[in-house]
Amino acid sequence: MKVGATHGSRPLGVAAIGYAFMGRAHSQAWRNVAAYFDVPAVEQRVLVGRDAEQVARAAARSGWAEAATDWREVIARDDVQIVDICAPGWLHAEIAVAALEAGKHVLVEKPLTNSIEEAEHMVAAARSARERGVRSMVGFNYRRVPALAHARRLVADGRLGTVRQVRASYLQDWLADDAAPMTWRLRKETAGSGALGDIASHAIDQIQFLLDDTVTEAAGRLHTFTAQRPGPDGPEDVTVDDAAWATLSLARGAVASVEVSRVALGRKNSLRIEVYGTAGALAFDLERLNELEFLDASAPATEAGFRRILVTEPDHPYVGAWWPQGHTIGWEHTFTHQIRDFLVAVRDGVAPSPSFEEGLQVQRVLAAIEESSATKPVRL
Amino acid sequence: MKVGATHGSRPLGVAAIGYAFMGRAHSQAWRNVAAYFDVPAVEQRVLVGRDAEQVARAAARSGWAEAATDWREVIARDDVQIVDICAPGWLHAEIAVAALEAGKHVLVEKPLTNSIEEAEHMVAAARSARERGVRSMVGFNYRRVPALAHARRLVADGRLGTVRQVRASYLQDWLADDAAPMTWRLRKETAGSGALGDIASHAIDQIQFLLDDTVTEAAGRLHTFTAQRPGPDGPEDVTVDDAAWATLSLARGAVASVEVSRVALGRKNSLRIEVYGTAGALAFDLERLNELEFLDASAPATEAGFRRILVTEPDHPYVGAWWPQGHTIGWEHTFTHQIRDFLVAVRDGVAPSPSFEEGLQVQRVLAAIEESSATKPVRL
Amino acid sequence: MKVGATHGSRPLGVAAIGYAFMGRAHSQAWRNVAAYFDVPAVEQRVLVGRDAEQVARAAARSGWAEAATDWREVIARDDVQIVDICAPGWLHAEIAVAALEAGKHVLVEKPLTNSIEEAEHMVAAARSARERGVRSMVGFNYRRVPALAHARRLVADGRLGTVRQVRASYLQDWLADDAAPMTWRLRKETAGSGALGDIASHAIDQIQFLLDDTVTEAAGRLHTFTAQRPGPDGPEDVTVDDAAWATLSLARGAVASVEVSRVALGRKNSLRIEVYGTAGALAFDLERLNELEFLDASAPATEAGFRRILVTEPDHPYVGAWWPQGHTIGWEHTFTHQIRDFLVAVRDGVAPSPSFEEGLQVQRVLAAIEESSATKPVRL
Amino acid sequence: MKVGATHGSRPLGVAAIGYAFMGRAHSQAWRNVAAYFDVPAVEQRVLVGRDAEQVARAAARSGWAEAATDWREVIARDDVQIVDICAPGWLHAEIAVAALEAGKHVLVEKPLTNSIEEAEHMVAAARSARERGVRSMVGFNYRRVPALAHARRLVADGRLGTVRQVRASYLQDWLADDAAPMTWRLRKETAGSGALGDIASHAIDQIQFLLDDTVTEAAGRLHTFTAQRPGPDGPEDVTVDDAAWATLSLARGAVASVEVSRVALGRKNSLRIEVYGTAGALAFDLERLNELEFLDASAPATEAGFRRILVTEPDHPYVGAWWPQGHTIGWEHTFTHQIRDFLVAVRDGVAPSPSFEEGLQVQRVLAAIEESSATKPVRL
Repeated sequence: MKVGATHGSRPLGVAAIGYAFMGRAHSQAWRNVAAYFDVPAVEQRVLVGRDAEQVARAAARSGWAEAATDWREVIARDDVQIVDICAPGWLHAEIAVAALEAGKHVLVEKPLTNSIEEAEHMVAAARSARERGVRSMVGFNYRRVPALAHARRLVADGRLGTVRQVRASYLQDWLADDAAPMTWRLRKETAGSGALGDIASHAIDQIQFLLDDTVTEAAGRLHTFTAQRPGPDGPEDVTVDDAAWATLSLARGAVASVEVSRVALGRKNSLRIEVYGTAGALAFDLERLNELEFLDASAPATEAGFRRILVTEPDHPYVGAWWPQGHTIGWEHTFTHQIRDFLVAVRDGVAPSPSFEEGLQVQRVLAAIEESSATKPVRL
Repeated sequence: MKVGATHGSRPLGVAAIGYAFMGRAHSQAWRNVAAYFDVPAVEQRVLVGRDAEQVARAAARSGWAEAATDWREVIARDDVQIVDICAPGWLHAEIAVAALEAGKHVLVEKPLTNSIEEAEHMVAAARSARERGVRSMVGFNYRRVPALAHARRLVADGRLGTVRQVRASYLQDWLADDAAPMTWRLRKETAGSGALGDIASHAIDQIQFLLDDTVTEAAGRLHTFTAQRPGPDGPEDVTVDDAAWATLSLARGAVASVEVSRVALGRKNSLRIEVYGTAGALAFDLERLNELEFLDASAPATEAGFRRILVTEPDHPYVGAWWPQGHTIGWEHTFTHQIRDFLVAVRDGVAPSPSFEEGLQVQRVLAAIEESSATKPVRL
Repeated sequence: MKVGATHGSRPLGVAAIGYAFMGRAHSQAWRNVAAYFDVPAVEQRVLVGRDAEQVARAAARSGWAEAATDWREVIARDDVQIVDICAPGWLHAEIAVAALEAGKHVLVEKPLTNSIEEAEHMVAAARSARERGVRSMVGFNYRRVPALAHARRLVADGRLGTVRQVRASYLQDWLADDAAPMTWRLRKETAGSGALGDIASHAIDQIQFLLDDTVTEAAGRLHTFTAQRPGPDGPEDVTVDDAAWATLSLARGAVASVEVSRVALGRKNSLRIEVYGTAGALAFDLERLNELEFLDASAPATEAGFRRILVTEPDHPYVGAWWPQGHTIGWEHTFTHQIRDFLVAVRDGVAPSPSFEEGLQVQRVLAAIEESSATKPVRL
Repeated sequence: MKVGATHGSRPLGVAAIGYAFMGRAHSQAWRNVAAYFDVPAVEQRVLVGRDAEQVARAAARSGWAEAATDWREVIARDDVQIVDICAPGWLHAEIAVAALEAGKHVLVEKPLTNSIEEAEHMVAAARSARERGVRSMVGFNYRRVPALAHARRLVADGRLGTVRQVRASYLQDWLADDAAPMTWRLRKETAGSGALGDIASHAIDQIQFLLDDTVTEAAGRLHTFTAQRPGPDGPEDVTVDDAAWATLSLARGAVASVEVSRVALGRKNSLRIEVYGTAGALAFDLERLNELEFLDASAPATEAGFRRILVTEPDHPYVGAWWPQGHTIGWEHTFTHQIRDFLVAVRDGVAPSPSFEEGLQVQRVLAAIEESSATKPVRL
C-alpha cells in the first residue's frame, strides 16, 4: 500500500531563502518536523540562493523539490504559502515585507534586521498582514530548547518566587585568533554590530522570554580587541565589537547582566544563563542543552542544592515527541520545534511568538546598549 | 529547476522491519543521512510491521513510500536491496538469514540474537553471503558516537599507552518501581536475558571496540531485585536479571569491569566508560555524548588533569558533516552515522563492521558471564 | 589575664605512635580539635617514633611536648591516658593489645591489622578492656566526612527507601608508573595485601556504614599489572594486588560492587560511592568532599535530578563547629572529627564506633574476596 | 626528651585583635602555620576583644596565652612584635597606624578600610614604617588559594598568551531572605558599602593579582533589592548595595567584568573567575578551591578542552607542605598561607604583598565604580 497518498487538505508549500549554515538548519527542520509532531502537511517546494549551482546541490541534499535564484519570483508563486528567510540580515526587511504583502506567512531568522528603521518597517508590514490572517515570526530558536522552555514554565509557575537577578553570557572563540580574516560580519555596514547583534540578541531575548518581562533600561560597553584583520588587499578595519557587556533593568524589578564575546578562548557556543529568585534559582548552559539546573529553596537547608534535571522526560516541553527518557537531542531541533510552533500557529490562526514586535524590542535594547557605551567610564 | 532528477545510478531501495522505538530511530537515519554525508542514493521503499494500520501511519510520518505487513514478501521484492531489521531479537535470525539468502544487504539491531545457536546460524549465512558480495552488519550504534569513535582513535594512536583498566557501566532506572508491569523483556524465553543482553552487550562491544581487543575470560554475577511483577492475570515471575556485574580479561592484558542495571534510580541512560592506560586516560558518559574527557599524562604534574573535549570540531569523527563547532548533536545520529558507514561499505564493496562475527563474540561473552554467575560467592 | 589556667579536671594525656603521613594527620587533629569542638581537655604529651632525631623534629613542629623512641615505655607512663597508633599495620596488634592491657584508651589506624588472627586477638583485648571502661576504636576516618555522615542520615531517615545497589570505587595512580620502586607496601608479608587492604577496606567500611548493614557474601578478583618493580638490588617480585574488584551481598538484600586501583592514571584519591534505593539515590566523590549529590525520586519527573548539596550548612554533621556556609574544609578534618567522636565517647563512657569488631568484620570481607579470587573465570 | 626547648632566637610575639569569624580563621592559621611551613618561631601571646568573658573563652579555645580588652595596651607591649587586625573595617585605620608607629609589624584584614581618606592615612604610616623595617600587609587571602597562585604563575609564564577578557563574580545568598535582619553591614556609615566593598574587593584584587596588572578605568552599577530590613525598633533603611556590577579596563588592554551579589539564592560562597587569553584560558570556583580549569589552546583542536587540574601536587604553590596528592585542603588554609608569607617577609626583611598601597588601589577602584553608578542608564 502507498502511504501519504490522500491528505485531507493541500499541503502548505514552503520556500526557504538561504542555504548556508542557517539554511541547512532550517531545511533539517522542515524535512523532519512532521515525523515527530502533529503539524499541517508541508512540502519543501523551493530553496532560493544566489549561486545557481550551489543552491541546486543544497536543495538536492536537503529535501527541496526545486532550487531557484530569484526570491521575487518565488514569493509570487501560488504554490508557496510560507517563506522562511535565512538570508543575511541586511536582506531581511526587503524580503519579509514583500513576502507579507504577497500574503505569505513569514519566518525570519534573528536578528530581525540590522537597523531600528528597517525593523519598524517590518513590524508595520507584519501588523498589516496579521489583520489579513498572514503570520509572521522571528527565529529566536533558543526559546525552543526544551530546558529553557521548561525553565520559563518554572518561573511562570512561581517556583523561583520573584526573580531578582539574571546572569546571561554567550561566549564563543572563533575570533580569538588575530589572524582570522576580515568578513562581512566584521563591518558595521553589513552586520550592524558584532557580538552584540549576533549573540547578545539571543541572550536578551532569552532573558525577556524566561521572565516574561520587558527590559526598560540598559547600560553597557562594547570593545574590539582586534582593530584590524587581514582582507584580500591588506589589513582592514574591524568596525564592530568583539565583545559586549550590559546591565539591564526589567519592568518588574529584576536586574540582568549580559556578557558576550567572540574571543573567549575555549568557549565554542556557550550561552549560559542563571536566574536567581526569592524562592528558587536556575542555571543553563547551551553546551549541555539537555540539562537544566534547578534550585528549590523550599527544601531544608541540609538538602538544598542545584539539581541537574535531564530534560528528556515525556512531560518536558517538546520532548514527548522524541525518544525515551535519557536519550538526548541535538542543537538542530531548536529549529524543528520552532517550525512546529510556527505551523501550529498558522493552522490555528493565532499569532506566533516571538513576533516582529518582540524582535524590534530586542533591537531597541541593543541600540540602547550601543548608545550608553558612548559614556566614558571613570578614570582612576 | 527540479532537483535530484538525474542520478548517476539507480537508488538503493530500503526496507525496514519494525516501527517501534528502534524503527523510528532507524527511519530518522534513512531520511536524513544523505543530507549530511556522501552516500549512495537510497530510497525508503517500504516499512514492515505486524499491525497494518499502525505501520501505515508510521510509514507516512517517517518518510517511507509504502507500508507492508509480510516481511517475506518484502524481502522478495526486486526494488529492495537493503533490509534493516528492527524487529525483536527472537525474529532476527529468521529474517536475517532469509534476507541474506535473497541477496539483500542486511543491517540488524543488536543484540545479534537471543541465543548462541541462532547467532552461529546467522554468522554462517553472513559468511556465505559475503562471498557473493552481500553485506551484513549488526547495529552497535554507540560505536558511532563521535566522542567514542574519537576515543578509539586516541587509543589506537597510543595516546593512552598500554591500556590496563577499563570501567564500564550502563545504568537505567525504568524498572526501579516494583509496580512496573511484566513485559516480554522480563521473560527469559523472549528476551534471552535482562540488563545483561540489553545493555551490557553495548558496554562489552564498546570495550572491545575502544581497545581493538578481544575478551578472553569473564566472571560475573546476575541479580533480580524484583522477583515478580504484575501481569494481566496477576503476579508473574521475572526470569531475567535486573542488574549484572562482570570482570573481563582482554587478550592484550587489560582488565575491564562492567556493571549494568535497570533499577539505578535517577540514571536514565547512563553508559559511562573510563579507560586507564600507562600514558593517558579517558572518561565518557552517554548522557553528555558530545563530550569526552581525556587525560594526557605527559603533561607536567602541575598541569595534568582530565580535559573536557567538546567533540564538535570539524576534524572529529563524523562531525565535519554537521554544524559549526560548539553545536551539539543528539543521540539519534549514532544511527545516522551507522547507516552512513553501512552505505559506504556497500558502495565500496567492503565488509562493514561490526560484523555478525563480532556480534556473536559479544553473545559469547554474555554467555560466559551467565555461566560464571552460577558459582557461589564466599559466605562470611 | 592568662587563659586556660583552671580546668575543671586534669587534661587527658595523649601519646601518638608514628609521625609519617598518618601521624602528621592525627597530630593535626589533636592540635586543633578543642578549638572547634566541646571535648575533654587533652594534652599532646609524647610522639613516638623509631628515629630519635626525626621524631623530635616532628614533635616540635606538630605540637607534642615530648618525643620518644620506645613505645613500651610510653604506654607505661601515668600521664598518658590515650594511645593513638599510626604505626604500620604489622605493629598494630602488639601495641594495641599492650596499651589496652595497660588501661589506655586506644585509637588505631585502619586497617585493623594485616591478618584475621591478629585482628581476633585485638578484638579479644578490646572486649576485655571495655569491661574495665577502656575504650578502643579503629580509624576509618571517612565515616567522619560530613557529606558521608549526612548521607548515612539520609539513608537512615528512609530518604532512599530500600537500598538496592551500591557502587563504590577507590582509584589512585601512584603505581601507574612501572618504574615506581618496590616498597614494603608491595610485599604480602609486610602489607597483607595491596589495594585491597589499603583502600578497598575504606570502601567496604563505608558501604556498611552508609547502609548500617553487614556484608554476608563476597566474590572478587585481584590483579597485579606490574609483576616486578625495581628494588635496591635489582627487580623484586610484587606480591600484592594493584587492583581489586568485588561484588558483595548485604544482609538486607542490597548488592554492592567495589573496584579499587593504584594504577588508574589521573585519579589521585578518588573514593566514589553511589547508592541507589527505591525512593532516592546518592553520589559522592572524595576529591570533592564538601559535596553530596542527592536524588529525591518523590519530586515530579520533570523536576527530578541529582542535586549538588554543598555540605557546609550549620546543621550538617560536624559542620556547625566550622565556618559559615559555603566555606569548605579539607581532608584532614576527617581526623579532627574522628578524634572529637573518640574523645566524646571516652568522656561519656560509651563505646566508640567503629569498634575493633567492626574492623575485624572488614578484614573478614577482605579475606573472603581474596579467597574467592582463586576461582577461575570462564574462558571463552 | 622535651621538644622545642632551645630555639636559635626569641619567638615573635603575636597579638590578634578580633575573635569573630575572621579572628577564628586567623587564630587557626597562627596555631598551625609552623607545623607545615618553615617560618620564624611565633607565639600566640594575646587575643584582644571588647567583651572580656567572650574573648577569654575564645583565647582559651584558639591557642592564645592571654586575653585582653584594650588594644592600645597590647600594642604597647614589648613581647608583642606582630599585630593582626581582624576588627571591623572602621577600626582598621586607627589601630593599624598606632601599631605601625609602635614599631609592630601589621597584618590587617581586607578591605583596607571604609574610606579612601583613611586608606591614604594608613598607606602613609606603612611607608614611614617600612623605612624603619616595619612590615605591613593587607589580607586578601584568596591570593593564597593554591589554585589561584598557580593560575597567576600560568599567566606570568605566558601560558595564556595576552590576556583579553576576565569574568569575575562573587555570589552569596545570605541576604536572599527579605526578612533577614538589619546589621551594621547594611549601613553605609559602618560598612562603607555592601557587596561592593565586602566581596567585589576580593574579585578586583584577584583580577589585578592574576594579571599582574592595574585597573585604570571603571564603570558600574549598584543595586539594593531590599530597601528596608527589620531592626530592633521596626524597619530600617538599608543604605548599601545588595549587588554590584562593573566593567574594568586594565593597563595592558584587558577588560574585566565583575558581578557580586548577596541575594544569589543557592550560591553560598561562589567566587568564580574566568580568564581568557590569546593562547589559553582559566576557570576557577571557590566552592571547589582545590581545582583549577586550564585550557591550553596549543593542543590540536580535536584534543583541546578545559582540563580540571586537581591542585594537590607537591609542586603546586604551598601544597608541598601539606598532604600527598589528591588530599584536599580547606578554605581556612588561605589564612595559613597568608601568615606563612607574612612571616617569611618579616624574616627576610622584604615588603610583603599585598601592601597597603595595593589595598588602597582596590579602594580606588571601588570608589570609581560607585561614582560611575550615578550615571543614568539609557531608557528604552
